[in-house]
Amino acid sequence: MTSISKIVVRYAETDQMGIAHHSNYPVWYEVARTNLIKRIGMTYSEMEQMGVMTPLVELQCRYNGVARYEDELLVEACVEQLTPARVKFRYQIFRSGEETPINTGYTLHAWVDAQTFRPISMKKRFPELYQKIQASIET
Amino acid sequence: MTSISKIVVRYAETDQMGIAHHSNYPVWYEVARTNLIKRIGMTYSEMEQMGVMTPLVELQCRYNGVARYEDELLVEACVEQLTPARVKFRYQIFRSGEETPINTGYTLHAWVDAQTFRPISMKKRFPELYQKIQASIET
Amino acid sequence: MTSISKIVVRYAETDQMGIAHHSNYPVWYEVARTNLIKRIGMTYSEMEQMGVMTPLVELQCRYNGVARYEDELLVEACVEQLTPARVKFRYQIFRSGEETPINTGYTLHAWVDAQTFRPISMKKRFPELYQKIQASIET
Amino acid sequence: MTSISKIVVRYAETDQMGIAHHSNYPVWYEVARTNLIKRIGMTYSEMEQMGVMTPLVELQCRYNGVARYEDELLVEACVEQLTPARVKFRYQIFRSGEETPINTGYTLHAWVDAQTFRPISMKKRFPELYQKIQASIET
Repeated sequence: MTSISKIVVRYAETDQMGIAHHSNYPVWYEVARTNLIKRIGMTYSEMEQMGVMTPLVELQCRYNGVARYEDELLVEACVEQLTPARVKFRYQIFRSGEETPINTGYTLHAWVDAQTFRPISMKKRFPELYQKIQASIET
Repeated sequence: MTSISKIVVRYAETDQMGIAHHSNYPVWYEVARTNLIKRIGMTYSEMEQMGVMTPLVELQCRYNGVARYEDELLVEACVEQLTPARVKFRYQIFRSGEETPINTGYTLHAWVDAQTFRPISMKKRFPELYQKIQASIET
Repeated sequence: MTSISKIVVRYAETDQMGIAHHSNYPVWYEVARTNLIKRIGMTYSEMEQMGVMTPLVELQCRYNGVARYEDELLVEACVEQLTPARVKFRYQIFRSGEETPINTGYTLHAWVDAQTFRPISMKKRFPELYQKIQASIET
Repeated sequence: MTSISKIVVRYAETDQMGIAHHSNYPVWYEVARTNLIKRIGMTYSEMEQMGVMTPLVELQCRYNGVARYEDELLVEACVEQLTPARVKFRYQIFRSGEETPINTGYTLHAWVDAQTFRPISMKKRFPELYQKIQASIET
């Protein structure tokens, strides 16, 4: 399962090079991740209320092109890997109508307890949600 | 009492006009407010741990000049008004070495309970801190 | 003429109070302003290419409620006042489905030359666009 | 040569997990990079005025710990690799007084012409600056 999220580059996201600043891409990944999780069958807000959080462990972005103010972007997100302790998402960002992504990347997250910030086994604690996420991975 | 905080404009804070984007000024105000509260005698983190939060009720900024990447700015903050329900801070931002502020503004905050987000009487709940803040106001 | 822009609160926009940080509201105003200008008949990018920029002179926000992660917001924007030297926009932000705005505010902008950052008379320099903006003001 | 930059976590940089949002780390890297370039012998502003820009090609962050509001962080930056077409910086972020970094990462940048955004040979165009950067690499 891949979610596709539309982003329009905000003025505040540009920098003095005249392009969207690179620190916005992880924020756009997050918007896409939110939509993907919702499509899988739960909002991330609900996940947090259930007591699970997913802080970042690793982030990688490759910038192949630039995005400018008012550009319409499509951000694709999918789950690439799932283990009881971690989940890895992969992203591609396209300028609307183009076939080559201007940006690709991944984020790796830990499953932690919302109170203690300690690692949890997602598989044991929320087997049903774990199952759904697993099922979303394309083979 | 007035706190003075040094800010150096970050690249990520610029926009395609080549100046610091206007949405950064409230963030810089907040840095200055953090330093002021610390000088008054408590960190804002401690205040939150004591169960009090201060969400914004009103914000005003006047932009008289511009700030550019790598500019060194001095942000002055002081408490202008205090009531049991609210606190108002005033700010002036100068480019280092200049006498006319490039920006002036204020923020008005409510005192609320950290759990319920309901208004509290700061004067009754934390009389000692209230007293210290009151004493910081210049007459 | 009033533009209505949909915003979904991003995780990165929340703060440790668990609400959208107040510095995001000016950014959302800007998204709404971009859409309004487009509806009036020109993109802001085109305006900048024509050599005109509109830096902020004044910003005011009133926060009557809070916005949380994944909340859907509607941002209304309209031109309130236009002079050859300045333009004032007014905003209202609603949580989707609600009738009382959680935030209201305005921004006042100067018309300046993109190269020199000097004030220009919008009326003289771009009479046609000036006319269109004037016509958008509701009476 | 390694530059060390002090960052104090801003309230606006926190998210509803109660920690600094992961998208701030690339911004802090940039602050450190600015200071490093200045120590090498030129401000980044001067570089841009000379007609050279350094957009990101790749970003990687590893998050080993968390940073919280008001935490004092030290960001170390150094040049790891330099070629005529590219430059790679490496970063380590420590909480003040600690020996294990909470975050490590790198950024890879292209040397491009500020007008055309086309790749340039830094070595040919600015041999003196190239030499200085080269000399800053520790062996």
